[in-house]
Amino acid sequence: MSLDPAIAARLKRDAEGLICAVAQQQDTGEVLMVAWMDDEALHRTLTTGRATYWSRSRREYWVKGDTSGHVQKVREVRLDCDGDALLVIVDQTGPACHTGSRTCFDNDVLLS
Amino acid sequence: MSLDPAIAARLKRDAEGLICAVAQQQDTGEVLMVAWMDDEALHRTLTTGRATYWSRSRREYWVKGDTSGHVQKVREVRLDCDGDALLVIVDQTGPACHTGSRTCFDNDVLLS
Repeated sequence: MSLDPAIAARLKRDAEGLICAVAQQQDTGEVLMVAWMDDEALHRTLTTGRATYWSRSRREYWVKGDTSGHVQKVREVRLDCDGDALLVIVDQTGPACHTGSRTCFDNDVLLS
Repeated sequence: MSLDPAIAARLKRDAEGLICAVAQQQDTGEVLMVAWMDDEALHRTLTTGRATYWSRSRREYWVKGDTSGHVQKVREVRLDCDGDALLVIVDQTGPACHTGSRTCFDNDVLLS
């Protein structure tokens, strides 16, 4: 009922117990968004097939798409070499961004 | 000689003054790595054409590839909708990971 201890032992969490999660669309490779997971959010993501994050602003778990319908079906989850970032490969329904854009990186280009 | 104030005003930094930066290979779309930038690292990334991070472990700026030769030439930089993550689209020479793997996400698959 909780995260596999062998995985938990490899995580390097920040001071708030979180690690950064990058969501990428499986077929196009688009980087959709960056969010945060604690151990429980990662456990739910690995076991329910739905990307689940920890909302730092609302202080609650956030199953992506539960209110918007813009769900992320989880296809793969990978941990990086130093254990402080996750790559979550998903199939995104509709826009990933709360603004209605496909990705959270569509609208503010600092350099091109 | 410092980050454009109009950009700096849109950043939401963590308690250490950092924001998360996702490096993505321009042509293949591979997510190469996740690292961290403060205002100065972002300024250098935007103005030098070389991806420059803040190393949390070494407490210093880190021009990717300066010691390894595995440089990241910067093609685009995008800020996300809530100002707390950067997408840095690069042309990566050789492996991005210090382990010698192409990406930092190649070797620890939690779910597939």
